[in-house]
Amino acid sequence: MNLIEQARLAKKASAQVRILTSEQKNKVLRDFADGLVSQASYVISENDKDMEAARAAGMSTAMLDRLMLNEKRISDMADGIRMLADLEDPIGKVLEERTLKSGLQLKKVTCPIGVIGIIFESRPNVTADCAALCFKSGNACVLKGGKESYLSCLAVTSVMKEALKNNGITEDAVMLAERPSHEETQRFMECREYVDLLIPRGGKKLIQAVLKNAKIPAIETGAGVCHVFVDESADLDMAEKIIVNAKCSRPSVCNAMETLLVHASAADTFIPRIVKTLQEKDVVIYGDEKARALCPSLKEAEEASWSTEYDDLIMNLKVVGSVQEAAAHIEQYGTHHSESIITENDENVLIFMNSIDSACLYHNASTRFTDGFEFGLGAEIGISTQKLHARGPMGLQELTSYCYRLEGKGEIR
Amino acid sequence: MNLIEQARLAKKASAQVRILTSEQKNKVLRDFADGLVSQASYVISENDKDMEAARAAGMSTAMLDRLMLNEKRISDMADGIRMLADLEDPIGKVLEERTLKSGLQLKKVTCPIGVIGIIFESRPNVTADCAALCFKSGNACVLKGGKESYLSCLAVTSVMKEALKNNGITEDAVMLAERPSHEETQRFMECREYVDLLIPRGGKKLIQAVLKNAKIPAIETGAGVCHVFVDESADLDMAEKIIVNAKCSRPSVCNAMETLLVHASAADTFIPRIVKTLQEKDVVIYGDEKARALCPSLKEAEEASWSTEYDDLIMNLKVVGSVQEAAAHIEQYGTHHSESIITENDENVLIFMNSIDSACLYHNASTRFTDGFEFGLGAEIGISTQKLHARGPMGLQELTSYCYRLEGKGEIR
Repeated sequence: MNLIEQARLAKKASAQVRILTSEQKNKVLRDFADGLVSQASYVISENDKDMEAARAAGMSTAMLDRLMLNEKRISDMADGIRMLADLEDPIGKVLEERTLKSGLQLKKVTCPIGVIGIIFESRPNVTADCAALCFKSGNACVLKGGKESYLSCLAVTSVMKEALKNNGITEDAVMLAERPSHEETQRFMECREYVDLLIPRGGKKLIQAVLKNAKIPAIETGAGVCHVFVDESADLDMAEKIIVNAKCSRPSVCNAMETLLVHASAADTFIPRIVKTLQEKDVVIYGDEKARALCPSLKEAEEASWSTEYDDLIMNLKVVGSVQEAAAHIEQYGTHHSESIITENDENVLIFMNSIDSACLYHNASTRFTDGFEFGLGAEIGISTQKLHARGPMGLQELTSYCYRLEGKGEIR
Repeated sequence: MNLIEQARLAKKASAQVRILTSEQKNKVLRDFADGLVSQASYVISENDKDMEAARAAGMSTAMLDRLMLNEKRISDMADGIRMLADLEDPIGKVLEERTLKSGLQLKKVTCPIGVIGIIFESRPNVTADCAALCFKSGNACVLKGGKESYLSCLAVTSVMKEALKNNGITEDAVMLAERPSHEETQRFMECREYVDLLIPRGGKKLIQAVLKNAKIPAIETGAGVCHVFVDESADLDMAEKIIVNAKCSRPSVCNAMETLLVHASAADTFIPRIVKTLQEKDVVIYGDEKARALCPSLKEAEEASWSTEYDDLIMNLKVVGSVQEAAAHIEQYGTHHSESIITENDENVLIFMNSIDSACLYHNASTRFTDGFEFGLGAEIGISTQKLHARGPMGLQELTSYCYRLEGKGEIR
């Protein structure tokens, strides 16, 4: 089916999904989770076909690992969906309630957004996460995954559609794009008539392509050039522990540290120590002149280094003269994602937090905590690095809008 | 100065504006208001030049009236700004505060968006409203008005810039575009680097042009095909009063009613009565077949009539068989702005409110209340008809974003 036609049907379905009760929605989600487990062998066999084609096409081992589904991964997907079913319904919450001067009783109530289009790469579990998040928040969704994972995604969505059908709900609530052409995808990204929000999930290239081509409100997600700043009064043991965690615990994710800034007063003591620790963990470090004077083994940082998201065991190291200079560097080169200050000086915490315009600002903690699960949101649909609508980890609440309901007794203006 | 250069300077200024105290911001706003009053003759003399050029160019009387400034209008502008100064600061509010399972203390705090670009038509008072709203919410702004109001807008912004300067704040916080070329404006609408949000304020054509060309998050405002539905159990006296108010009190605004839907059971009694009342007020009515059978003087509604925003003493009238049919009509032809049900049946209120996806839903009241002042928001920067970020009247709160501040004791993940 044509992608625009799928979007039209999703729009129609969204009117039904919008008014489902929490019980109805949670029942579907639990059936979806059970279905994934009971039909795991079917899902895995479809995934095998994707894997085979991908291997034949020469896909890298890392990418093959992202594509692969096994019983454990399917059972994790199901657990995630069950967790979502247990969360509070984000729809119908009264955010404000007051009497206007005209006498009208105003209620500001959360409601679904409508149809959410999600454009993602090859991980099939994204299909399950997104379908479940959108459905729980009363939205219909149109999912467009990478073509290399098509059969896997089709298997996962067919289980969701079965759960919908068995509960008397239209299967059009969850749509998987059927390998649309480039032109179709472009028209989809311009289709304000049927799609209310676009969320790109994936690498920088994918996100930038969506932002460049979309005519629908879209949310920028993902890019993370995150910083840790070690202030002059920092507890250096704590700083070392945090830095190792922020860089090494999972370097491929967007909340990993890319640049370490060290106050000049702490540089002589701390830089040789932290460089030794990181190099023992195979981290490649690009340093500025001052850092390299202390540790000649560092590679030379170039202007472009400071704005690079390595997503790997690679990082930058720079000496700064003050918290203000650290903040200015982060504002200039960062992506407004997550930054941390390690300090015992509360005044500097305030300067750091007030001067930096990032989604998440930490004091004495690792940047790795910027995550929907860690923030207690349940699953997340992405991490917004823009400032409109949602910022930072996006969970169920961020997939809602609101409307005003006004109760009168014949009021006129 | 080039518009992109202005945006760059505004971005730089936004770092200063973001951290101003409420007292500093309110002082500037009061000085701005006082300055407008004390320099009214200068502002009027500049406006005179715009008026003269507009008259020579053959501008319509209605448009000339929108462009014109006099002492009364300037004093109203000043009052609006003083009212804004009295409102609570929307920045720095703690929206949520909790301890994560990791032990981190999370605070979700409101913060400015950054740089807001506003593209508007010829009313010079929009300049003052937007500059004041953006500044109070900690944002820098770049204002691009119609060329026919340039000198008037320049005079108004120069008063604001003087207030900024006298309070030691960079004048770049408020930028007025200097008659940029079409190409410059296009580049501005793509300039994600310096501009965080675009708001078009004006007619449908302007709004659609911005949505079509922007590569920056933009908010769709304004278009209003609003409905009133008279249910079978309606109090018909109340219905008449509300309909007359919704259509006739100010037909040119977006919250005026464009289509009246009447339940078939009430049609025989009510339609001849309401048509007579409205025709006595010079309202031109396009009716469907059933309405025209009751009142042959009605014009014939065509398919396109139902989605037309007349902004004038013109409207549509249609007979429907049920609240569900009314809701379906509104979903098909409306603009998701404001709709009202007149009924004594609470069950139908619920059906109406649950089935219609509009920003504001009324029971027994006029649609004309969809307005920032009426909602108690103070001034408004527009009425959003989209679902991302803000919906309905947008005041100070809708010009904010939020960030997370996380306090740790060395937590790692």
